[in-house]
Amino acid sequence: MRIEKVNLKEKFKQFTDYWNPRIVGELNNQHVKLAKFKGEFIWHQHENEDEMFMVIKGSFQMHFRDKIIELKEGDFIIVPRGTEHKPVALEEVQVLLFEPATTLNTGNITNEFTKDQLQKL
Amino acid sequence: MRIEKVNLKEKFKQFTDYWNPRIVGELNNQHVKLAKFKGEFIWHQHENEDEMFMVIKGSFQMHFRDKIIELKEGDFIIVPRGTEHKPVALEEVQVLLFEPATTLNTGNITNEFTKDQLQKL
Repeated sequence: MRIEKVNLKEKFKQFTDYWNPRIVGELNNQHVKLAKFKGEFIWHQHENEDEMFMVIKGSFQMHFRDKIIELKEGDFIIVPRGTEHKPVALEEVQVLLFEPATTLNTGNITNEFTKDQLQKL
Repeated sequence: MRIEKVNLKEKFKQFTDYWNPRIVGELNNQHVKLAKFKGEFIWHQHENEDEMFMVIKGSFQMHFRDKIIELKEGDFIIVPRGTEHKPVALEEVQVLLFEPATTLNTGNITNEFTKDQLQKL
């Protein structure tokens, strides 16, 4: 395997669409993904995967059934498996995700937001 | 499990020592760790763990046997298992690590740098 560094800013420049995570790293059967969020996603959960969201630029809200958590630059949150959640971004936000390679973006739901073939950048 | 956000800056304020990673998140048997590096670490490798280093503030060099990679703010690198490496930081650098919960900081080496009881922040 060729070892190279990855620059987040450069990777984020390579796409403009929302809710479509790109794979930028793989390790220990986990994926490092980058995504841009804007607007409201759907309620969903992941049966077998804990999911980490880290804000690289901007801010967004993670909605849970019992609370809303505001995430700003330099914040991260871990959503445990089996926990319903819905990201909502009032403005565009750049997010890094860390999660098992098996993770489907819409979890237990399949709809127009579902991306089952992620691009590697 | 109680779901809370974590702010990187606040966590980094809570310690000042070098080469002593703190655990700030756990998911899918992986740990999210924060560490401050300054100076030269030791050559080592991890038999069973790929390791990710992301620069949050500052810069450092990752030395490999055949090259040196400079990492600045917003860069990350994944060091595959079985690859000898040595971090070197000319100035203090703040680093986020993603790696399996089983990872020992000095890998196959045990010496005065070894930390086998990591603190959770």
